[in-house]
Amino acid sequence: MVIIIQCEDRVGLVADIANVLAKAGCNIVSMREHVDSEENKFFVRIVADGIKDPQDIENAIKAVLPQKAIVRVDPKPEKNIVVLVTKEYHCLSDILTRNHFKTLGASVQCVIGNHPDLKNITERFGLPFYFVSHENKDKESFESELMHIILPFNPDYLILAKFMRILSPGFVYSFKLKIINIHHSFLPAFIGANPYSQAYKRGVKIIGATAHFVTNDLDDGPIIVQKITTINHSLKLGDLIKAGRENETAALVKAMQLVFEDRVFVYNNKTVVFE
Amino acid sequence: MVIIIQCEDRVGLVADIANVLAKAGCNIVSMREHVDSEENKFFVRIVADGIKDPQDIENAIKAVLPQKAIVRVDPKPEKNIVVLVTKEYHCLSDILTRNHFKTLGASVQCVIGNHPDLKNITERFGLPFYFVSHENKDKESFESELMHIILPFNPDYLILAKFMRILSPGFVYSFKLKIINIHHSFLPAFIGANPYSQAYKRGVKIIGATAHFVTNDLDDGPIIVQKITTINHSLKLGDLIKAGRENETAALVKAMQLVFEDRVFVYNNKTVVFE
Amino acid sequence: MVIIIQCEDRVGLVADIANVLAKAGCNIVSMREHVDSEENKFFVRIVADGIKDPQDIENAIKAVLPQKAIVRVDPKPEKNIVVLVTKEYHCLSDILTRNHFKTLGASVQCVIGNHPDLKNITERFGLPFYFVSHENKDKESFESELMHIILPFNPDYLILAKFMRILSPGFVYSFKLKIINIHHSFLPAFIGANPYSQAYKRGVKIIGATAHFVTNDLDDGPIIVQKITTINHSLKLGDLIKAGRENETAALVKAMQLVFEDRVFVYNNKTVVFE
Amino acid sequence: MVIIIQCEDRVGLVADIANVLAKAGCNIVSMREHVDSEENKFFVRIVADGIKDPQDIENAIKAVLPQKAIVRVDPKPEKNIVVLVTKEYHCLSDILTRNHFKTLGASVQCVIGNHPDLKNITERFGLPFYFVSHENKDKESFESELMHIILPFNPDYLILAKFMRILSPGFVYSFKLKIINIHHSFLPAFIGANPYSQAYKRGVKIIGATAHFVTNDLDDGPIIVQKITTINHSLKLGDLIKAGRENETAALVKAMQLVFEDRVFVYNNKTVVFE
Repeated sequence: MVIIIQCEDRVGLVADIANVLAKAGCNIVSMREHVDSEENKFFVRIVADGIKDPQDIENAIKAVLPQKAIVRVDPKPEKNIVVLVTKEYHCLSDILTRNHFKTLGASVQCVIGNHPDLKNITERFGLPFYFVSHENKDKESFESELMHIILPFNPDYLILAKFMRILSPGFVYSFKLKIINIHHSFLPAFIGANPYSQAYKRGVKIIGATAHFVTNDLDDGPIIVQKITTINHSLKLGDLIKAGRENETAALVKAMQLVFEDRVFVYNNKTVVFE
Repeated sequence: MVIIIQCEDRVGLVADIANVLAKAGCNIVSMREHVDSEENKFFVRIVADGIKDPQDIENAIKAVLPQKAIVRVDPKPEKNIVVLVTKEYHCLSDILTRNHFKTLGASVQCVIGNHPDLKNITERFGLPFYFVSHENKDKESFESELMHIILPFNPDYLILAKFMRILSPGFVYSFKLKIINIHHSFLPAFIGANPYSQAYKRGVKIIGATAHFVTNDLDDGPIIVQKITTINHSLKLGDLIKAGRENETAALVKAMQLVFEDRVFVYNNKTVVFE
Repeated sequence: MVIIIQCEDRVGLVADIANVLAKAGCNIVSMREHVDSEENKFFVRIVADGIKDPQDIENAIKAVLPQKAIVRVDPKPEKNIVVLVTKEYHCLSDILTRNHFKTLGASVQCVIGNHPDLKNITERFGLPFYFVSHENKDKESFESELMHIILPFNPDYLILAKFMRILSPGFVYSFKLKIINIHHSFLPAFIGANPYSQAYKRGVKIIGATAHFVTNDLDDGPIIVQKITTINHSLKLGDLIKAGRENETAALVKAMQLVFEDRVFVYNNKTVVFE
Repeated sequence: MVIIIQCEDRVGLVADIANVLAKAGCNIVSMREHVDSEENKFFVRIVADGIKDPQDIENAIKAVLPQKAIVRVDPKPEKNIVVLVTKEYHCLSDILTRNHFKTLGASVQCVIGNHPDLKNITERFGLPFYFVSHENKDKESFESELMHIILPFNPDYLILAKFMRILSPGFVYSFKLKIINIHHSFLPAFIGANPYSQAYKRGVKIIGATAHFVTNDLDDGPIIVQKITTINHSLKLGDLIKAGRENETAALVKAMQLVFEDRVFVYNNKTVVFE
């Protein structure tokens, strides 16, 4: 059973937490702890055996922690997600396949596309696809339609699997640190539109992809995972985009797995990832 | 200050250790714990602030641990090493350079070569080089000469930096888990002599290097670090050897850094590495 | 248009080939040439613009080459493949997805499984699945059933996408250098059964996957692509297998793309790969 | 013997070049060709056996090429270089070691530092070190002093091995495409000062290093090699800088090897690298 804790640091914190577990007869199988000394922040992820009543343990741990601590004992093991897409199939197909074979660590509730292109593949896997065009309407109306579809599913995370629309601050705020995006560059290089085209023009020898939480600063949210591929002069722009797809798929699925297994903590626009 | 512990696992171990530290007013800055549940083995590496008397803390921790536990509080921060070489310069040069600029995490006491080729480079860095030929003598005499040179330095580790002689069980036993070797293949592929030649003939697309502790089974000791390089058909055997050198140097230095920082635990012919 | 040539080497070969193209007004856009001087073998892959009649050019080139040369001008751009599977879904799903979106560079004709597990996913993509059990029959009968299904499709390649049966020399001979297998280890390490279990026991720090042409020596055919993943002590056998799947999928799809684009030449149980 | 050619593309170019070689009885052992179709640029690197008079061959090839073609037959196999440094030792030590063991592919003529810190290590390898302070003088005087030292060595390349001064356009112009710099970031991310500090603050999961030719646009010259290292939250800024050093050393030495072996062509602020 997983226990995650994020709070202010102080002397004796590990002892106090470990004592709660020891008294309850629980064995710590694995423990990853990190302290940011500059910021005085404490992060721990514990895997423990022998927990009988998670809520009891959670309360007992809370009682020994500083104010405002975040504690979760036995967080939901399978998250619910809603996937937003535009036209590109590679990230979505990978998600659908893993969801189908129950290796995603989450359950896809539905897919929403601002283009209808990926309806077919979604439905092949027996999942609902909602087409919500962004055309001929303002962002508010568009996002209100999205919300109308998303909210009933009460998802733990929204996955932007190559969803090419910028979401408004209001929308992002409603899903604070619950939206994961895949950006097709090695951030902070090539922020914004057409990163592959920028990379091609610059003649870089490595291209990347970045999975990150979405905040209101475009492509500037906390980074979860980055992946790269070595390229060379012989790749034209189209080849670069093709090579990049493998990266994007790999970075997004890795980020999802880390988040779904409660291995990712966020503070100061950065992440602590206990891989 | 670093604390390392290796012992049988039981419920409450982390609590007991953390209590010792909390009572002494020490703060745990970083903690990496691993339990091998199948073997019931517990490993932890703690970085703690505020330790006044390491020996006191070590005794106090020992008192709460199972029998036969290995505990070290504040292990020697700079290890002494003796480096054994044959003719190839790349690993040795890297060690000498880092030693010179004090970034090796160890202090090179001397270099011993069974050929004289590397005397010049060693002496350029102001270090003693001992030439001990293996020719025209049996292994026992050869190793006895090595011992005669090594023992006065009382080294924490022997580094085989491309030392091309196989050491006897007796010699290895005298430095149990204190000899680090770099093998020029991705073990367990290409055990024994001429791994690059074997790799070339087999037409592999990746070559590797393996840094490991030396045991009495040739190239079969606990692996610390492995590194690889992608190759292709255009590399002839000589190019492969050249490409491999970068790997060997990188794998050996990484392994040394991990061992010197007390991040490597050994059991069952395997390692736990808290990187 | 692609031109591939494999033959004995001699002085003037490139000139003679290039002259044929120049006379026909064709421009060489890209050219990769390799000579194995020890074996006196010549390999070239040319991409040329302006070829009007590929058969004419092929004949003209043949006329200037040594005996027994292999020449193909404009080889079939989309290969037909038959995929053989057992129970694991990851390689097959990746193939089916890319086939569906026409980015595989080949057209999947059908999938054959010696277990029925992957019938469902295959049929979701509208492709025929044939279940051919290997149980209660000898290898000859089993392979005869396979043949009966395969031959009408006249495939260019058979893809063993985690097909866990060893094929007989006779079967392999019928598809000489046309069967691509994915082996779940970094060959030649861990040949044969249960490579992950072997790797786990050995405590390696890197696991691999190898895509290769099938020959009659188990896991010893010409290697096309190898991929690796770094692991550590915290991964149990199950995690290792899971981590390995990503490798296997990536290595197989890369090997297929290289083969389907006519970038792979075979000789002496090795490959020349013009990536 | 190596032949390199860079010129406008046209039909028949490869044939014309190959005919020159065939007539002279030379065998093409390896050939890498690239055409940028958009820019109509042709690049080729040939390794040929049996060249008797390189100058004759060069003239004969020139005669069949378009105007303004760059042709070199048997370019100087060992380049002369001058190395410029500031205080950091890692790139310089690597260069000095390889130079000493004759595996750099170039001959270091001297080292110039704008601080005296690396005089000691340079002189240990028996090479001259010139200390040229940049303090209390304008850039013109500083660079004039550099020139005064550099010019008598007539170097083929200047290597900026962590030289932390920005060179003036005039200086750069004097060594057009002959100055190789190592920048300690994954360009174009983190241009300018303190890239590791920027990377640390941004919370990236991968850091990089970029070896490039120096032009007048800061950190914007043609990229030759990029290398990366995966990092995580546990690395403080100092650890990041330490980890980055390995990258920098590796990227710079790789770039040097490629340039010294005449594998790098430059056009449009990009490189073609025949690795």
